[in-house]
Amino acid sequence: MTKAELTIRTVNTPAVLVDLEIARRNIERFQAYADAQGLAVRPHIKTHKLPAVAEMQLKAGAIGITCQKISEAEAMIAGSPKITDVLLTYNIIGLEKLEHLKALARKVTLSVVADSEAVVEGLSGAFASEPAPLPVLVECNTGADRCGVPTPESAAALAQRIAKAPGLVFGGLMTYPPAGGAAAVQSFMSRTKAFIEAAGLTVPVITSGGTPSMMQAAEAPVTTEYRPGTYVYNDRSLVSRGVCGWEDCALTVLATVVSVPAANRAIIDAGSKALTSDLLGLSGYGHVLGRDDIAIDQLSEEHGRLVSKGPIHLNVGDRLRIVPNHACVVTNMVDTVNILERGEISAVWPVSARGCIV
Amino acid sequence: MTKAELTIRTVNTPAVLVDLEIARRNIERFQAYADAQGLAVRPHIKTHKLPAVAEMQLKAGAIGITCQKISEAEAMIAGSPKITDVLLTYNIIGLEKLEHLKALARKVTLSVVADSEAVVEGLSGAFASEPAPLPVLVECNTGADRCGVPTPESAAALAQRIAKAPGLVFGGLMTYPPAGGAAAVQSFMSRTKAFIEAAGLTVPVITSGGTPSMMQAAEAPVTTEYRPGTYVYNDRSLVSRGVCGWEDCALTVLATVVSVPAANRAIIDAGSKALTSDLLGLSGYGHVLGRDDIAIDQLSEEHGRLVSKGPIHLNVGDRLRIVPNHACVVTNMVDTVNILERGEISAVWPVSARGCIV
Repeated sequence: MTKAELTIRTVNTPAVLVDLEIARRNIERFQAYADAQGLAVRPHIKTHKLPAVAEMQLKAGAIGITCQKISEAEAMIAGSPKITDVLLTYNIIGLEKLEHLKALARKVTLSVVADSEAVVEGLSGAFASEPAPLPVLVECNTGADRCGVPTPESAAALAQRIAKAPGLVFGGLMTYPPAGGAAAVQSFMSRTKAFIEAAGLTVPVITSGGTPSMMQAAEAPVTTEYRPGTYVYNDRSLVSRGVCGWEDCALTVLATVVSVPAANRAIIDAGSKALTSDLLGLSGYGHVLGRDDIAIDQLSEEHGRLVSKGPIHLNVGDRLRIVPNHACVVTNMVDTVNILERGEISAVWPVSARGCIV
Repeated sequence: MTKAELTIRTVNTPAVLVDLEIARRNIERFQAYADAQGLAVRPHIKTHKLPAVAEMQLKAGAIGITCQKISEAEAMIAGSPKITDVLLTYNIIGLEKLEHLKALARKVTLSVVADSEAVVEGLSGAFASEPAPLPVLVECNTGADRCGVPTPESAAALAQRIAKAPGLVFGGLMTYPPAGGAAAVQSFMSRTKAFIEAAGLTVPVITSGGTPSMMQAAEAPVTTEYRPGTYVYNDRSLVSRGVCGWEDCALTVLATVVSVPAANRAIIDAGSKALTSDLLGLSGYGHVLGRDDIAIDQLSEEHGRLVSKGPIHLNVGDRLRIVPNHACVVTNMVDTVNILERGEISAVWPVSARGCIV
């Protein structure tokens, strides 16, 4: 591709654009907040899946990265020698995954989580004969009702189980709280910490996460570490919650109008294969920048339907930039993203950790 | 990977499984119906994205394939020399896409659609100096309110515009109707055909599509061709519409239980990155085979939450097979699918046309 083709006026659509200056500003804003609070930052890479953006986060002051799946961690580590500290916030189950986990632990500083004896037993069986023990954090349910032990008592019991397991060391406490859950985190974690310390163990890390409540992280002072993900790009969901403005959205989907079949309706070439069907409680599938009158009311795989209350004033061939409801899932749809610097495309980056589901 | 690892008991999860015998039965069932009705079959490859499955469809009697995007057609053609006839049911806009379209037309029998003069002008400009003219079908809106000209009169006018355009020939009429839209298709298409024939043109093809109504295709006898997509795999959406049963679902997602945090709740390792957020009007995100009591009530990217009215009776490490709401979008999430034959994994196939959005 020649330099001249790398413009937002001619790049083949639909295309995902990532404005690196906005991303850098978003990274630095939260890092400054966390630094002021004495909170370590360990960004979740699920939003960008790009080793180069992880390097930006590390350079700004992050202590390491968070991944959900082993294959994500493997892809990120393969993409950057600067990624040397990884927390996997997932219960690792099964022989094949445990083999990969051992290989990973020999390459980087690794920690994982567990929320049951079954997971602890599997980890211990795999690491009992490894040269170094694996730090395992207890995942706690502070209200999101996904994974996690249900009570401080059960968290403390699992911490002791980990501490006694061959090949493992107790690494701390982890939670993914519901939005606005700082008080619940503070209550659950401080009680759990007291129980664990009473049993003679120390709690080296208490880690929480979630972009929606990240600027209230200090309201749970018991936490030592925060794992924001979406904050690097932001999205329509976060704008709708008042967390940021459109000007803070680093990721947009560039689409072309392919049909204007009615005065108030237009069809774009970005459907659910670009924008995804994630609603996150919203109505419609994204925000067309500069066109507050337009709703994206329907997606099929390759078509997005735009409707306006009045005449839509669009022509076949027009290009639009859309802030998706959820940035993380959009980067998972595409093999490459177009990097924007000073308003123009400066590079095309492969999305290294795309599709890493195992 | 050794043969022993290729089993549904040990394959790394989440994994997409495709039962080839069920797919073959689905292909043959519709082909037999279409043959009996004198209807040509041109399957939409968006569901499988696999050249080898397209070959199964062609072998059963399909006259060619349907693709939505140029890059899908390129990937499919690169994957099989038997794919020699492609209909692109999409308005092709922009210089880069038109260049790819010209290259494609030199390799295979190609036809495309248009629903506006702007699209026709672009195609004509690109093909005016090509050795062979490009057949262009008029896309008609028979009620789905996506793309398509709105009336038989406007369809006939665009057909005449195509017929006069340098580099193009009028190729017929195309529609993607709403479910149960056979009567609307029959009415729109027969009136349009009469207008076009009165103007001295012939209508070589009238093509309709959609799996939900495929067994009622004969209720629109004016159609000459049908483009089913999802029929090859089926999914929960089609079961819920009464189109097929669970035993006809060729695609399943194999997932592992990673947490059982409450008596009635379990978490699996398949989230929206495997099952997608497509609801298609349903409640919940898929059907757990053999467990009618379970609802998948919440997905995050890497977690699926299962809830039961009573005790869920699942343990960490248990494996479940899930029929997703929408099969097509699931194949777009994964780089490979595991091929099932006689109940075991016989091969791992790359999803050749995954992520082809341009």
